[in-house]
Amino acid sequence: MNRTRIGLIGFGYWGPNLARNFHALPGCDLAAICDASEARRQKAESIYRSTRTFASYEAMLASDIDAVAIATPARSHFPLARAALQAGKHVFVEKPLAMSVAEAETLVELAERLGRVLMVGHVFEYNPAIRHMKTLLDGDAIGDLYYLYSTRVNLGRVQSDINALWSIAPHDVSILLYLLGRMPVSVTARGARYLNGNVEDVVFFTLDFAGGVLAHVHASWLDPSKVRRMTVVGSKKMIVYDDLAAEGKVKVYDKGVVKARDAQYGEYQYRLHSGDIAIPKLPLLEPLRIECQDFVDAIAHGRRPHADGYNGLRVVKVLEAAQQSLREHSRPVAIEQ
Amino acid sequence: MNRTRIGLIGFGYWGPNLARNFHALPGCDLAAICDASEARRQKAESIYRSTRTFASYEAMLASDIDAVAIATPARSHFPLARAALQAGKHVFVEKPLAMSVAEAETLVELAERLGRVLMVGHVFEYNPAIRHMKTLLDGDAIGDLYYLYSTRVNLGRVQSDINALWSIAPHDVSILLYLLGRMPVSVTARGARYLNGNVEDVVFFTLDFAGGVLAHVHASWLDPSKVRRMTVVGSKKMIVYDDLAAEGKVKVYDKGVVKARDAQYGEYQYRLHSGDIAIPKLPLLEPLRIECQDFVDAIAHGRRPHADGYNGLRVVKVLEAAQQSLREHSRPVAIEQ
Amino acid sequence: MNRTRIGLIGFGYWGPNLARNFHALPGCDLAAICDASEARRQKAESIYRSTRTFASYEAMLASDIDAVAIATPARSHFPLARAALQAGKHVFVEKPLAMSVAEAETLVELAERLGRVLMVGHVFEYNPAIRHMKTLLDGDAIGDLYYLYSTRVNLGRVQSDINALWSIAPHDVSILLYLLGRMPVSVTARGARYLNGNVEDVVFFTLDFAGGVLAHVHASWLDPSKVRRMTVVGSKKMIVYDDLAAEGKVKVYDKGVVKARDAQYGEYQYRLHSGDIAIPKLPLLEPLRIECQDFVDAIAHGRRPHADGYNGLRVVKVLEAAQQSLREHSRPVAIEQ
Amino acid sequence: MNRTRIGLIGFGYWGPNLARNFHALPGCDLAAICDASEARRQKAESIYRSTRTFASYEAMLASDIDAVAIATPARSHFPLARAALQAGKHVFVEKPLAMSVAEAETLVELAERLGRVLMVGHVFEYNPAIRHMKTLLDGDAIGDLYYLYSTRVNLGRVQSDINALWSIAPHDVSILLYLLGRMPVSVTARGARYLNGNVEDVVFFTLDFAGGVLAHVHASWLDPSKVRRMTVVGSKKMIVYDDLAAEGKVKVYDKGVVKARDAQYGEYQYRLHSGDIAIPKLPLLEPLRIECQDFVDAIAHGRRPHADGYNGLRVVKVLEAAQQSLREHSRPVAIEQ
Repeated sequence: MNRTRIGLIGFGYWGPNLARNFHALPGCDLAAICDASEARRQKAESIYRSTRTFASYEAMLASDIDAVAIATPARSHFPLARAALQAGKHVFVEKPLAMSVAEAETLVELAERLGRVLMVGHVFEYNPAIRHMKTLLDGDAIGDLYYLYSTRVNLGRVQSDINALWSIAPHDVSILLYLLGRMPVSVTARGARYLNGNVEDVVFFTLDFAGGVLAHVHASWLDPSKVRRMTVVGSKKMIVYDDLAAEGKVKVYDKGVVKARDAQYGEYQYRLHSGDIAIPKLPLLEPLRIECQDFVDAIAHGRRPHADGYNGLRVVKVLEAAQQSLREHSRPVAIEQ
Repeated sequence: MNRTRIGLIGFGYWGPNLARNFHALPGCDLAAICDASEARRQKAESIYRSTRTFASYEAMLASDIDAVAIATPARSHFPLARAALQAGKHVFVEKPLAMSVAEAETLVELAERLGRVLMVGHVFEYNPAIRHMKTLLDGDAIGDLYYLYSTRVNLGRVQSDINALWSIAPHDVSILLYLLGRMPVSVTARGARYLNGNVEDVVFFTLDFAGGVLAHVHASWLDPSKVRRMTVVGSKKMIVYDDLAAEGKVKVYDKGVVKARDAQYGEYQYRLHSGDIAIPKLPLLEPLRIECQDFVDAIAHGRRPHADGYNGLRVVKVLEAAQQSLREHSRPVAIEQ
Repeated sequence: MNRTRIGLIGFGYWGPNLARNFHALPGCDLAAICDASEARRQKAESIYRSTRTFASYEAMLASDIDAVAIATPARSHFPLARAALQAGKHVFVEKPLAMSVAEAETLVELAERLGRVLMVGHVFEYNPAIRHMKTLLDGDAIGDLYYLYSTRVNLGRVQSDINALWSIAPHDVSILLYLLGRMPVSVTARGARYLNGNVEDVVFFTLDFAGGVLAHVHASWLDPSKVRRMTVVGSKKMIVYDDLAAEGKVKVYDKGVVKARDAQYGEYQYRLHSGDIAIPKLPLLEPLRIECQDFVDAIAHGRRPHADGYNGLRVVKVLEAAQQSLREHSRPVAIEQ
Repeated sequence: MNRTRIGLIGFGYWGPNLARNFHALPGCDLAAICDASEARRQKAESIYRSTRTFASYEAMLASDIDAVAIATPARSHFPLARAALQAGKHVFVEKPLAMSVAEAETLVELAERLGRVLMVGHVFEYNPAIRHMKTLLDGDAIGDLYYLYSTRVNLGRVQSDINALWSIAPHDVSILLYLLGRMPVSVTARGARYLNGNVEDVVFFTLDFAGGVLAHVHASWLDPSKVRRMTVVGSKKMIVYDDLAAEGKVKVYDKGVVKARDAQYGEYQYRLHSGDIAIPKLPLLEPLRIECQDFVDAIAHGRRPHADGYNGLRVVKVLEAAQQSLREHSRPVAIEQ
């Protein structure tokens, strides 16, 4: 079988990570890199000497590559992915897949019609910590799922054309949909603009899932500390996932509240149960490597990748609804199932 | 001058802390303790042998005490405080002052009319860490205030008749009003009920202040970890207050984002500034002691305490609005100024 | 059965903790408190109104108490304990039992001869965390025991008549002898005097146990941070005990190094094994309460307490040898078995 | 001026880091890489396509390179460095410079005689955190220096031909000599062998400096946690350097102990002073980059690098003395000044 020839568009902040992984994977070649900046093209050439560089993506699409990976500003995801699909290429797009449900649906339909792989870079769905949490949630380990909350804040990576919802929170939405395996019913969102009158630097939003499960997300690029933490509260166990923990990203707490009759006063009371804490050993796999491998394998075997276009579309549906709620000062916005 | 004779109602979870402090303060006597439970009265008697105990608060109010401290379940704050004021006593009530604006206003008016001190147990307003933060916010230290967020979660102290908003979040609201020195314009709130169909175990709410300042609060008694943390984000500096930090409850970050022209591409870009971190030494004072002293001094000198009835009323106004938004699925509810 | 009448000598730094516990225990009465300072006696009287106070210990020994607890400066432990035993009292002495092996042996012999309980305040031997570690060490959980090290440092509690070895490290020696269940063969020690020309503010010492097990201790009252941490390294598992950890004082690491033939180069290599981390739930018992209970029970049932005089003597033997090594610039000093 | 042509010997654990830096520096070319392993040579070739590889170091020394960087097992440092100097090359050797004072002296003399740069990879002396600490120690910031202690432990990088003293502790010795700017007077050392009967997996040693300053080091490759921490205790301030701290590697504590007359009892007492904590912002420079730059600049300008042969020799003198003390069960071994 031939090795898939991959062309990368965008060699700025994130593109070099994709380049490094596609370069290292056995089943593909990093055949081309496209960036409008000459300095970046030179940098790419100095690292990948046998990779061809392009200043124009049209020229790259016209070359003999099989697949395109897109790591450009979010607003260009849709036009670039559409052009690449139309040129007959398999497409990997960084998150978010697109900036609207209409755009995302267009891409999904195009990929279906043309028989091409469409994948989105929801890298946390390939993260061993998140995957371990999913096995705990899918089994009976934590009892009834009550609620989840996620904090993804830091200082920097400030954007001026998209807000923190579209820039940062796609990760949280992707993780939540993956862990729960279903769409939320509705969303309410708040946020505020400080640096730039146009986009929210900080957003808070809440997803309502059927059965009363709530998921709250706080995303910001204006914070003194870097935090990537998600807490899952169940009736029998609770989980904290801290992506930056020095020792043990996932902690499973044997903790809960039980209703019990008080011995002294005869009334029903809530009593807390607090047992051991377990820190499972997780496989030392680079999520981005597994993600890139999934794209290459999906092309090779003509199958869908895990984070396929539908997956990307679902996340965009939630983001679009959250955006609408944000615009309307937290009015609950229903999400199409 | 005579020492103020204080009677305490409620010797359950928090009452013993008030008893210990009023007992130790030089300007007052812990003259009486009232609790319906015989076991608790016996416990109180074994510690405070010269303090009289009562099973009925009416009997205690009829005795020769000058002031009453109320540390009972929140729903009884109003009737007990009203009865105590009507009996001519000065009154200290644990937070929240009452369960509605109407109740709180009644207490404030009663205290005004009868010339009695009315105080609420907003203990964090007497906390050296919070007071230090207020001096930073009142000066120019942090630049423009952008937003604040507070997390107050833990496992336990589950209530079945009031929700986490009224049980836990009065502290956050009190701190926020104190730090900002003004009322929010409106509030939106979300929450969920898990243990008990009647009350929210977890709430998230957002206060909107004039000038675009946002304050977000997460309060819950259903969490694997105990967290008491507030972050303040300004244009020039940022502050993290962690009440449980082993070393330095307040950290002041010389961090911010500045708009600057990029040397290479000529565009305006946001650049992060990150300088020293300072951990100020705070006075080793017990906030509860200062709070109790303020009550005793206010009585002795016929002046208002810092956390007076108006202060308590303002917090109740915010809580009542948040409760309404909670009931209406995060509809923004305006707050009377 | 009559309640044991206990007299406490010393109401300074630690004495109040013993008073509080003996006062609360059902099987005994805190009958008397002796302190040369009038201010301290007044403080004791204000808390324990039915406890008699004495300025002279001779007078207290002449009163109708059954047992004496000694919480005075270390140099006075021996004369006070001897006098108490000679007066026919059961004796509890804070650590160290005495300042020399000769003194400690005298006390042990006296207690034997007079049939009185002699106990030393090695409170960590009653600590649930240490007891849990002992069960791990006694079983096969950690494999072969390699080495242990302990850090007990902080700023303050500076002494001018005894050094950090005798003031701080008795805890570490007591824990180590308890965990290993045997005496070390020899000791080497280093230290330095900064504040006061007479006593070491900081000491480092190493105990050699048969079988090559090494235990290292760092004790100091001149450190920016408070640390109470002990690490146990075994061939199969490793344990960290951090007495100040907010969440989980004991962590059990499934970690070790295994010798394995390298697949690529055919040589034997060391490969690290790193599995789960477990944080066991420990009983929420106050070690000091259990310790005081053991004293009271030992008296009541005519049995030895766990931390008996022989236990105290063993620790003093190690301290005396360490002191000698300290004086001789780390010459190895053998320890009598 | 011509760019220095550098040949690297050893492309195993550390060599790739040197390669990356010498490759990226403007003033030099990574001209050659030598490694006996074909797999490693292939890996080197795949990354540095214009760099020539060699299986034999003699062949590489015979090529047209100007300088040699040695990143091989410690026992080979001396023969390789000597051969390189004798071939007329400038030499950079990873720490330790050699395995004995005699070897190190031979290298220093050879470099002097042949007029070649000799440098040792004491990378922490180029670390902004350590350099900041040196400015604090050189000024009056911390008052009188009392003592320092360093912990450098982790699990792994187990060696079978050299012990933890020679493998891990050269960093600590280099840092200590750099910070204090003078040689210790003597050393005492303890250690133990567990995995392998031949070499110590764990060592503890103490350096005595004139004026009573003590420095203690704990080095081990058999520990559940990775720790790289050094504490400096002065009379006026104290410093903690934690190389793995997420936020602020250097903390400066305004803490100390002052002798003061007690108001109540009239005696002199030690009172602790505890003020602010400062976390200085440090330059974001990669120490290894600065180190490699120093080597390249020293060659270009015919000057000594900071970590020159004499620096390397001093560290070896301390290590050799510590090794002797280790062998003789902590007998104090004097160190030649």
